[in-house]
Amino acid sequence: MDYRGIFEDALDALRQEKRYRVFADLERIAGKFPRAVYRDDSDNAREITIWCSNDYLGMGQHDKVVGAMQETAGKLGAGAGGTRNISGTNRPLVELERSLADLHRKESALVFTSGFVSNEAAISTIARLMPDCIIFSDQLNHASMIQGVRQSGMEKKIFRHNDIAHLRELLSAVDRKRPKLIAFESVYSMDGDVAPIEQIADLAEEFGALTYIDEVHAVGLYGERGGGITDRDALAHRIDIIEGTLAKGFGVMGGYIAANKSIVDAVRSYAPEFIFTTALPPALCAAARASIEHLKTSQEERAGHMRQVQLTKEILSEAGLPVMSTDTHIVPLIVGDARLCKAASDLLLEKHNIYIQPINYPTVPKGTERLRITPTPMHTDEMIIELRHALVSVWAQLELPRERAPAALTASKLTSGDLTLPTTGG
Amino acid sequence: MDYRGIFEDALDALRQEKRYRVFADLERIAGKFPRAVYRDDSDNAREITIWCSNDYLGMGQHDKVVGAMQETAGKLGAGAGGTRNISGTNRPLVELERSLADLHRKESALVFTSGFVSNEAAISTIARLMPDCIIFSDQLNHASMIQGVRQSGMEKKIFRHNDIAHLRELLSAVDRKRPKLIAFESVYSMDGDVAPIEQIADLAEEFGALTYIDEVHAVGLYGERGGGITDRDALAHRIDIIEGTLAKGFGVMGGYIAANKSIVDAVRSYAPEFIFTTALPPALCAAARASIEHLKTSQEERAGHMRQVQLTKEILSEAGLPVMSTDTHIVPLIVGDARLCKAASDLLLEKHNIYIQPINYPTVPKGTERLRITPTPMHTDEMIIELRHALVSVWAQLELPRERAPAALTASKLTSGDLTLPTTGG
Repeated sequence: MDYRGIFEDALDALRQEKRYRVFADLERIAGKFPRAVYRDDSDNAREITIWCSNDYLGMGQHDKVVGAMQETAGKLGAGAGGTRNISGTNRPLVELERSLADLHRKESALVFTSGFVSNEAAISTIARLMPDCIIFSDQLNHASMIQGVRQSGMEKKIFRHNDIAHLRELLSAVDRKRPKLIAFESVYSMDGDVAPIEQIADLAEEFGALTYIDEVHAVGLYGERGGGITDRDALAHRIDIIEGTLAKGFGVMGGYIAANKSIVDAVRSYAPEFIFTTALPPALCAAARASIEHLKTSQEERAGHMRQVQLTKEILSEAGLPVMSTDTHIVPLIVGDARLCKAASDLLLEKHNIYIQPINYPTVPKGTERLRITPTPMHTDEMIIELRHALVSVWAQLELPRERAPAALTASKLTSGDLTLPTTGG
Repeated sequence: MDYRGIFEDALDALRQEKRYRVFADLERIAGKFPRAVYRDDSDNAREITIWCSNDYLGMGQHDKVVGAMQETAGKLGAGAGGTRNISGTNRPLVELERSLADLHRKESALVFTSGFVSNEAAISTIARLMPDCIIFSDQLNHASMIQGVRQSGMEKKIFRHNDIAHLRELLSAVDRKRPKLIAFESVYSMDGDVAPIEQIADLAEEFGALTYIDEVHAVGLYGERGGGITDRDALAHRIDIIEGTLAKGFGVMGGYIAANKSIVDAVRSYAPEFIFTTALPPALCAAARASIEHLKTSQEERAGHMRQVQLTKEILSEAGLPVMSTDTHIVPLIVGDARLCKAASDLLLEKHNIYIQPINYPTVPKGTERLRITPTPMHTDEMIIELRHALVSVWAQLELPRERAPAALTASKLTSGDLTLPTTGG
């Protein structure tokens, strides 16, 4: 049996579709974020600017965060030493979960090793525990939510992206006595559009459904205390389960849910992904908590973030670049072709020392390939000007399109066709 | 719809079966491992000795490991900043993967956020990529391997634990032309027994199957370079995929696979659990690599470990305690009843300042409930004597059985019945 041949064929298929990925070898520089050392295939190093980081506020280099990590590693050691049950429930983790429950004004919170695992574990476990449950899932939900839905083995209905009328139609068609779970995101990471959270909560109330929101691209960034869009719009109390990440706005690593005590305790007690995984190291927990607590009161990072996002959008738009309009911090620049998108990314890195990875199918639909730009508070005005010049030069060299892209492009490309994207968001 | 009631009922079911878990709030003390500060429900703190850590060698407090974590956090910051593709592939992670490939003498390695995710992602992806694949899975495989098998959606055959004749029977019954994957562990964590790796490799060769071994309870601990049982027995070259953890013997966090380039690249390119997850923070990667590299040459930790394991087994056996005999570092003490097992654990903590969590169904079969003791090189001779006295006192107070338990008890309890345990190992 030629096993190597089987796997090589699978890889060749990706290469032919121009979606074989090469990861850039990057060494971030604490204190100089978003600058980093890039190493090419021959290990030659040079400094570049990262324009696609999900460390949206640069909290990964914040003194309080790095300091908490170093201090806690020194006092408690490097790892947790076991699963939560097998001696791994460390003090900083207990404190982190309290901090997260408070962030979202919920009774309880539970930490996982990643946002992916928190979605997979929480959605599948919650749905499985509700007899004959039916799940209503937004068409553009993240791959991890799709995996949670699939793994539950429960019936699912997919509603058109952010389409309240469609969700209502699907809800009304189901027996009122069946348990229902509506799963959606607040900020969709590829188009940067926002869900109609209040209307979904209204529908949930009307039809007696539980609500599950993924706020991974919003926590830390939105709301007076950094609790996400549900914090900004004072809607947290109307959503049953809020899922978030410690890895993006908070700059560290891990995922979590916040909800009432019964739900959190049930996931804690039944989810194999949680039960059979070593606990998050105390140093990471302390770093994440320092970040969350800082962002509960400091508005500086959020204000700086929004200012530089706005400036980036304006400067790139004025230069005639095809910026998709969004209400959030995500600045997609449409290329519309897989090969050209990769070429643009390569040129930016090779000629301009700017790193923005190409986003191709299946992360976004074919024809909407893009560069996804994420300005942070640490991107200076000068860096934005540099970015503009670099992009204009690349756009000219590759003769790329300059038409402004419509908002929420991804959904518009999908509604006529299949209701499921195989994967989104990475 | 009374959603809270549904989840409360699910929790009550666990309480009635005496398997509702309460996590101990522990604060490890770097430099004093295995000592830790325990906090009770009222947040009262006192120092205790942990006797059930999976930080088997105490590497979580090793100077080189903690130092690498602190130094790298200071230089590169707290988090990776994105998925592997979205600017998260950090330099220490690239170096860690090279170190792991070298550890197992494989072409390539790939790091995940946990051992659970590495098993789920690798097994499901590898199996899915092989058309019409059939998976042969040991009956006592870990919950994460079972999840990977299920998620692949491929046909599976479960062979009786470590039973070569049964595996041969199952292999011979399948069309030779179908791709086959044999998935098993080296050290089974609950009984501490070891798989017949060479015989399984022989069968794999005879029937043309790929082999996948989980070495999470062995890496760092066994072999001249800490490569696990396949290193100790010079069998690594006969196994296609070696899966391991950075969280137990290496004392940090994360999971990985090591294999040939094509397999690793295929998992890297196709597994959603990998693609859509933020990369491991550079400080964790540097800490894990420091631990791995140290254990590639230092024999001191392994020698000290085996010495204290042997001494613990002898002293507890001489005291007439029901030690299950094992060839490895795991020392199970059979109680045989869920309520009594919990009571023994509680008494040890309350009266003797010793922490060993109870292991009940479904982690082990009913009737084999146990205390699972894991001595480390840092458990002194005095601590072992203390443990003996504490256990003898608890055994007397609760009138627990003193019969010596047979080796590989778990499998013997299962062979007549169902071939799948719902979950094992956490």
